[in-house]
Amino acid sequence: MEKMNHTLGEIKPLDNEAMSEARKRQDDLTKPQGSLGQLESLSIQIAGIKRNPRPRIAQKVIFTLAGDHGVTKEGVSAYPSEVTPQMVYNFLRGGAAINVLARYIEARVVIADLGVASILERHPDLSDRKVGLGTQNMAKGPAMSKEEAIRSIEAGMELVEKELSKGVDILGTGDMGIGNTTASSAITAALTGADVAAVTGRGTGLDDKGWENKVKVIQKALERNRPDPKDAIDVLSKVGGLEIGGITGVILAGARYRIPVVLDGFISGAAALIATSLSPQVKPFLIASHQSVEEGHRIILDHLGLKPLLNLGLRLGEGTGAALGIFLVEASLKILDEMATFSEAGVSEKEDVPQK
Amino acid sequence: MEKMNHTLGEIKPLDNEAMSEARKRQDDLTKPQGSLGQLESLSIQIAGIKRNPRPRIAQKVIFTLAGDHGVTKEGVSAYPSEVTPQMVYNFLRGGAAINVLARYIEARVVIADLGVASILERHPDLSDRKVGLGTQNMAKGPAMSKEEAIRSIEAGMELVEKELSKGVDILGTGDMGIGNTTASSAITAALTGADVAAVTGRGTGLDDKGWENKVKVIQKALERNRPDPKDAIDVLSKVGGLEIGGITGVILAGARYRIPVVLDGFISGAAALIATSLSPQVKPFLIASHQSVEEGHRIILDHLGLKPLLNLGLRLGEGTGAALGIFLVEASLKILDEMATFSEAGVSEKEDVPQK
Repeated sequence: MEKMNHTLGEIKPLDNEAMSEARKRQDDLTKPQGSLGQLESLSIQIAGIKRNPRPRIAQKVIFTLAGDHGVTKEGVSAYPSEVTPQMVYNFLRGGAAINVLARYIEARVVIADLGVASILERHPDLSDRKVGLGTQNMAKGPAMSKEEAIRSIEAGMELVEKELSKGVDILGTGDMGIGNTTASSAITAALTGADVAAVTGRGTGLDDKGWENKVKVIQKALERNRPDPKDAIDVLSKVGGLEIGGITGVILAGARYRIPVVLDGFISGAAALIATSLSPQVKPFLIASHQSVEEGHRIILDHLGLKPLLNLGLRLGEGTGAALGIFLVEASLKILDEMATFSEAGVSEKEDVPQK
Repeated sequence: MEKMNHTLGEIKPLDNEAMSEARKRQDDLTKPQGSLGQLESLSIQIAGIKRNPRPRIAQKVIFTLAGDHGVTKEGVSAYPSEVTPQMVYNFLRGGAAINVLARYIEARVVIADLGVASILERHPDLSDRKVGLGTQNMAKGPAMSKEEAIRSIEAGMELVEKELSKGVDILGTGDMGIGNTTASSAITAALTGADVAAVTGRGTGLDDKGWENKVKVIQKALERNRPDPKDAIDVLSKVGGLEIGGITGVILAGARYRIPVVLDGFISGAAALIATSLSPQVKPFLIASHQSVEEGHRIILDHLGLKPLLNLGLRLGEGTGAALGIFLVEASLKILDEMATFSEAGVSEKEDVPQK
């Protein structure tokens, strides 16, 4: 609790001076002003985050956090809970989508167990940050205690801190947890006030009947637990998940240490709702990598005022969208850093006189 | 003419067998089926293009073709025509946006002069394919002769053929030419039947008055020249551009040699309209990298039935969007090639029994 509160107090605004210097340079590069759209604004945001008008990124880290959900007992997922640990082992062997994309963009992947519902084999690349053996069934009562919620957030912070010595110039968030779209829909409904049906999708592939059941289960969980929308820890503990708490901590640590935070999809979006609810100062540090297929994600992005970089119909999680987003952020910084200016290149600028 | 007709005759359909094998593998990878959205369909398209169920790409080439436009005399651009050769020199020195992004994705850039309105200094990295010293003013008469239009297309084909010995596993298209959004709007109106105002944007940055003038100039050019929408060469010669003809040739050669063609924005889109009008068989070889800010581009993409991979508010050209698109195509192929299957990873598949 103390660690979390200390971190929240350390989050400061973006650096306006670095941003206006970066804007000035963008406008002087050999292209019509604004012609690289979001790539320009991204580079300026990163300049503000890093207090550097011409930032570069070398060390990229994706945090893929795993946890299980007691609510799977209600039949809310197309896959069994056993898939969570199986996929963790797949991550550790390098065979999952996030491994492929992280290798491609030359990012490290930090794989952490925040709350898988079984004891995992030890592995040098697995961070054991287990807060519990999965959550409780939120349809029957709170998913976890408030203390566990805070511990999961602080565990996420510590994962980032542990990487600082190796360098973290940009971070991506990711998740693995059968049942976690159910928790994310519940969080989204609680914190944005949206209808449950409007924020509930098909997760890994529910049919119509499965979707209707999922909506009812979430409604039941919200009615039974009555999470307080003014208290994000209350929401996380009652209808959240341990990996979602962990991602919240990763986001908060990113903001504190002035590391750009590239959000993955719906699950990371739910964690961003919690993080920004704990401190609105977090928002300028966030970059939405993509628009997920999950219906609730659009509502989260609108709520946070974030424009996603990609819309490729992704709904996998793991940090896959974040990996693609990190590529685009790096592209934006290379543009800012490496392009010639009009004067360097001897290119004429826009004509100020009427053309005819 | 003979070369063009021969190429058109050599364009064959995608390979269904390779595509269904790739689809089968995608469905067996450790992720819910379809959860990587457009990345999955992209990889299957490339398998069909390359007749290989598990294709890889190593050699990436972006073709950035330059040409000038006589119609700039009508005051349709915010920048003077001198910028075309100045930017070509900027490309040759490596200081432009396309150089930065090509270096980042490890692509070669082929810079070619199809019709810059001045004699350029020789340079080992500049392909001299000049068909003319810019086009004529299309508001007064045809932009070029039919023979020049065909020569520009064949020059584009030869640019691709020259690279084949070094390897071209994927190609991107790009353009440089002050005034070329005017030509592209005219081509789009002629070939899709859309209203001129609906396909005319602000190019490099026109104000309201400049935009109104541009619309009038394009209307005048179409009325004066009456391009035949059933004859793409007629359209290209009357209201097109030499670099647009060149890009058309690059696209046709891509389809002929079964190289995936990643289109940049509006100018490349206009060339794709001409290419697909010459042969509808070209379409399955096309990938739309992004949705440009230029209004006409959406109409082109709808007309061609292409869904853009990115929508970042870009409007620079040069092949910058194509470079980002090539990254995403490569990501999709790495997913297909490198991910573990369910059986390899020992991960449970989707439950077929009702969950509750």
